[in-house]
Amino acid sequence: MAGAPVESRTRLTASEITAFLTEVFPGAMERFVIEEVQPMRARVRMKFDDLQLRPGGTISGPSLMTLADTGLWVALLAMIGREPLSVTSHLDIDFLRKPAPADVIAQTVLHKIGKRLAVGDVIMYSAGEDVPCARASVTYAIPSVRLDPPVE
Amino acid sequence: MAGAPVESRTRLTASEITAFLTEVFPGAMERFVIEEVQPMRARVRMKFDDLQLRPGGTISGPSLMTLADTGLWVALLAMIGREPLSVTSHLDIDFLRKPAPADVIAQTVLHKIGKRLAVGDVIMYSAGEDVPCARASVTYAIPSVRLDPPVE
Amino acid sequence: MAGAPVESRTRLTASEITAFLTEVFPGAMERFVIEEVQPMRARVRMKFDDLQLRPGGTISGPSLMTLADTGLWVALLAMIGREPLSVTSHLDIDFLRKPAPADVIAQTVLHKIGKRLAVGDVIMYSAGEDVPCARASVTYAIPSVRLDPPVE
Amino acid sequence: MAGAPVESRTRLTASEITAFLTEVFPGAMERFVIEEVQPMRARVRMKFDDLQLRPGGTISGPSLMTLADTGLWVALLAMIGREPLSVTSHLDIDFLRKPAPADVIAQTVLHKIGKRLAVGDVIMYSAGEDVPCARASVTYAIPSVRLDPPVE
Repeated sequence: MAGAPVESRTRLTASEITAFLTEVFPGAMERFVIEEVQPMRARVRMKFDDLQLRPGGTISGPSLMTLADTGLWVALLAMIGREPLSVTSHLDIDFLRKPAPADVIAQTVLHKIGKRLAVGDVIMYSAGEDVPCARASVTYAIPSVRLDPPVE
Repeated sequence: MAGAPVESRTRLTASEITAFLTEVFPGAMERFVIEEVQPMRARVRMKFDDLQLRPGGTISGPSLMTLADTGLWVALLAMIGREPLSVTSHLDIDFLRKPAPADVIAQTVLHKIGKRLAVGDVIMYSAGEDVPCARASVTYAIPSVRLDPPVE
Repeated sequence: MAGAPVESRTRLTASEITAFLTEVFPGAMERFVIEEVQPMRARVRMKFDDLQLRPGGTISGPSLMTLADTGLWVALLAMIGREPLSVTSHLDIDFLRKPAPADVIAQTVLHKIGKRLAVGDVIMYSAGEDVPCARASVTYAIPSVRLDPPVE
Repeated sequence: MAGAPVESRTRLTASEITAFLTEVFPGAMERFVIEEVQPMRARVRMKFDDLQLRPGGTISGPSLMTLADTGLWVALLAMIGREPLSVTSHLDIDFLRKPAPADVIAQTVLHKIGKRLAVGDVIMYSAGEDVPCARASVTYAIPSVRLDPPVE
């Protein structure tokens, strides 16, 4: 659509992203379901899995970090298309509350897709909870200009 | 209101917070205007000031960091009341785009006010812009339980 | 020793920490070897394991995050003794270079063990390399004063 | 020296860096003294200045953030030469202890100067103290390859 801001279009659907990630990283999406993809946003669910529990019944920190990283990468792929070369360059996470023994939902939003970096935020909730169990922000190094124009 | 979640109440209004901060940190609010306070949220404006410009006409990084810290502290004070003892223990910030030579608006949201820590996110926009110039997250060490019950 | 700063003593040896972590988190130390423990410092090795490789032969980001978290927790346990209640409250990591398909060594240093928080830094190297593949910092919430006096 | 690794050479001395920063950002170095520059490292002193004190006699958080950012930028300039275009893209800081009313010393180390990003760590001490008052890490976006070869 002529004149539409680049942020208003996605290049891949949820099922296309799942297929692509499964193709390039076999098994990577076994625990994740892409529930929704919108321009610059995605919602991704991490399925509950007893194996990830630590003593005390809590979901491990590395599992939440993986959810944050995967969830925001989904939002990025939706915007830039089939592009496996972006790599995570920075991640920071605050563990806010002990997660329930349940699925965890990541709400992700991209703030920028620049020529070199993409940056976004993630809020994570145990399924059915109102208050978040963790927040994260993630930066990706992207190989070259992928958007015309870039969302800067 | 009986049964209302603690998040639904603020203890201080915008003008009460401004008065309190000016009392304990004279001059601290000269550049800031509290535009709105809601439970667990605040919007704070940093007034444009030529002195903060660096060559090239950009607002300095430390100015944006001060805005992030002040903006989220306003949201915290609104919830816990006149309490000067909370101190910033962690701040991380991503500079996303060169800010315009204009006021900067911080939208802040608290994710947790716990017994020991409060954590929240800040998104900053140049006045009139749709896309953010910076994002930040901040953690405060709080001296003891201030909410009954805590928002954990 | 009268007058010695608290930082000069450790309470647990490498083998005592390994035994304790294996007791409270069965399997947690299968991939890790504590190579050295000193006051406020530890060196921990993550053994190379083909399963952690992603396509392209790189060690996954979550593996490096787990190494950072485990490595600094080892340094903390050495100082505060058998204390399972400390929890990670914040972790941030920068991925600097693609790790080699080899063991990864974490050099960790604690900067503070306070009444409520412990904070430290981690530098990670592929075995045999001079330049780091990642850096991280980690904060732990600790349940109460564990040192007399605290290292503040 | 033929064959010397690029990390073993600096391109600018402390006084050349001070002159350059004063030229491009007049006033920027008024409060800072570059005490030492080595390959990938620098030590920078922030002079004590009553104006930066907050009630309670503490040096403000933004002052420490500015010290971290300036101190690591000095180390970067020493390696890449007179290059004003690098910009801070990320900064995170942990405030560990209340600084004394005294000069603050920043010990900075660069971990990477890549094609697009430079990343390093900063530890800050009040003059005369053994334990740090703050730690920080900073990322700079650099405009293009500045080293041949890059320190990756």
